[in-house]
Amino acid sequence: MTVTITDIQQAAQRIKPYAHRTPVLTNESLNEKVGAEAFLKCENFQKVGAFKFRGACNAVYSLSADEAASGVCTHSSGNHAQALALAAKIRGIPAYIVMPNNAPSVKKNAVDGYGGLITFCEPTLAARESTLDRLRLDTGANVVHPYNDARVIAGQGTAALELLEDVPNLDVIIAPVGGGGLLSGTAIAATELKKGIRIIAGEPEMADDAFRSMMAGEIIPAKSPKTIADGLLTSLGTLTFPIIQQRVEQIVTVSEAGIIESMKYVWERVKIIIEPSSAVAIGVLWEKKIDLSRLKVGVILSGGNVDLEKLPW
Amino acid sequence: MTVTITDIQQAAQRIKPYAHRTPVLTNESLNEKVGAEAFLKCENFQKVGAFKFRGACNAVYSLSADEAASGVCTHSSGNHAQALALAAKIRGIPAYIVMPNNAPSVKKNAVDGYGGLITFCEPTLAARESTLDRLRLDTGANVVHPYNDARVIAGQGTAALELLEDVPNLDVIIAPVGGGGLLSGTAIAATELKKGIRIIAGEPEMADDAFRSMMAGEIIPAKSPKTIADGLLTSLGTLTFPIIQQRVEQIVTVSEAGIIESMKYVWERVKIIIEPSSAVAIGVLWEKKIDLSRLKVGVILSGGNVDLEKLPW
Repeated sequence: MTVTITDIQQAAQRIKPYAHRTPVLTNESLNEKVGAEAFLKCENFQKVGAFKFRGACNAVYSLSADEAASGVCTHSSGNHAQALALAAKIRGIPAYIVMPNNAPSVKKNAVDGYGGLITFCEPTLAARESTLDRLRLDTGANVVHPYNDARVIAGQGTAALELLEDVPNLDVIIAPVGGGGLLSGTAIAATELKKGIRIIAGEPEMADDAFRSMMAGEIIPAKSPKTIADGLLTSLGTLTFPIIQQRVEQIVTVSEAGIIESMKYVWERVKIIIEPSSAVAIGVLWEKKIDLSRLKVGVILSGGNVDLEKLPW
Repeated sequence: MTVTITDIQQAAQRIKPYAHRTPVLTNESLNEKVGAEAFLKCENFQKVGAFKFRGACNAVYSLSADEAASGVCTHSSGNHAQALALAAKIRGIPAYIVMPNNAPSVKKNAVDGYGGLITFCEPTLAARESTLDRLRLDTGANVVHPYNDARVIAGQGTAALELLEDVPNLDVIIAPVGGGGLLSGTAIAATELKKGIRIIAGEPEMADDAFRSMMAGEIIPAKSPKTIADGLLTSLGTLTFPIIQQRVEQIVTVSEAGIIESMKYVWERVKIIIEPSSAVAIGVLWEKKIDLSRLKVGVILSGGNVDLEKLPW
């Protein structure tokens, strides 16, 4: 089971009434600084403040009325949990969210605020999976994985679809990579719509499992990664990895300093709030490890959820 | 000498090739929070990060070729100095900027970066004015006051012109008030284009000279005001005050807490960087001292220049 451009186009129609069509911003100072022409796809302005709403919304609205009645479920403490809760709330169905009992209260409150029904468990992967499994059996809810799910991948691909509608003559698109949902959706949408477009991923040096997986030709799980880009800690999935192998030119790692500097620069000059995971994509341009000079580069800014009390500078 | 809607429309044509047409953003969470429908005119995305570029650009391009050859001058250490320097640079003429010798280096660097020619003086108003006068006599440069200048007022009014083109059915427009250039330009543009539209100003409680001037019916200068909204420390001018008396419904004061809370809320939810002076306009909706519930309210976000190292939370 893979994802086609038709799946992404159908996802775009499906989520259109609920998701924002986010703007594409350009900034002269940034272009001068990085020596390329950057087109910023602002998923920080998306509902719940991240691209995750696209995939969750597509999954929720892909369900038949019968399936939907039992609700959806997932285990996540991040943006996906909020996105799934909101999408379910809009459709009027329950969203069961498994969260570790040590999750920060700000994340619990966010999921709660969108009407998600939280079940707490011990903070281990085994506990999260067994709790989710029990919930699924008890409620009949449909499991929506944060990235290893064709409906989610198709939903995430709609951002690149819009970006290419707005700026058809891009040479390159850069997206950050964690589990690979955004990257694989982006890669399918872009390479199917525009022959020869280059897809490049940004990944934190300190969480470079996707980079190593590409080198090894098999999924190498992340081993206790530590990076400020806390949206990119997860490893690639069995659905996302083959798509990335086939369609992504390369994965470029970005240092922690590069992430923080480019995040601050975008705040100061572009005047928008982006989270560290978004800055990883900017960081590819910022650190210039690969030559993208004078090219037209689409950059998918994954989101803007940051704790303003804990800034990295 | 006053300013007409024709002056503003001509200013719009004059600055069009150089200034950004800034977007108007809306946000559901903010609307729920304040109980009104807010349309945010994003001058934080304007060149030099503030609406000031509009007025400075209109002044610079209003000059004849002969006049322009001698350049422009002003005394300012804020956004106006940067705006004038950039506008002059674009036209290829000199901008002489008088700055107090205790101005922060970040402000000196910004003016310098836009090619402004800085003359330092003692940090008193008398020294600033005499230094500017000497410069003017030595160079023949045209003085461009930050707000008490018809060309500047007309330029600032172009933001409201665009806002009403994008959202014609506004009930109210809120702008912050310092010297009154933005407010008076906004008031002329809006009340001439839309009969019955209400113009409301936001002013820091801790720098409420415009509020007191309106009450007294004469300009009451600010007395050592202290507010986080450091763009709003100046007093009204002889040109701006009569326009405001005639066209502005009322000036609403906003507490320091209200400024900081609404600034943080916009950062967190709208995902854009606004400076405290912009938050003063949001603060009018936030503090609900006057009833604007369920109205369509245009809010002019004056700028986004903040020091990310010194945030107020």
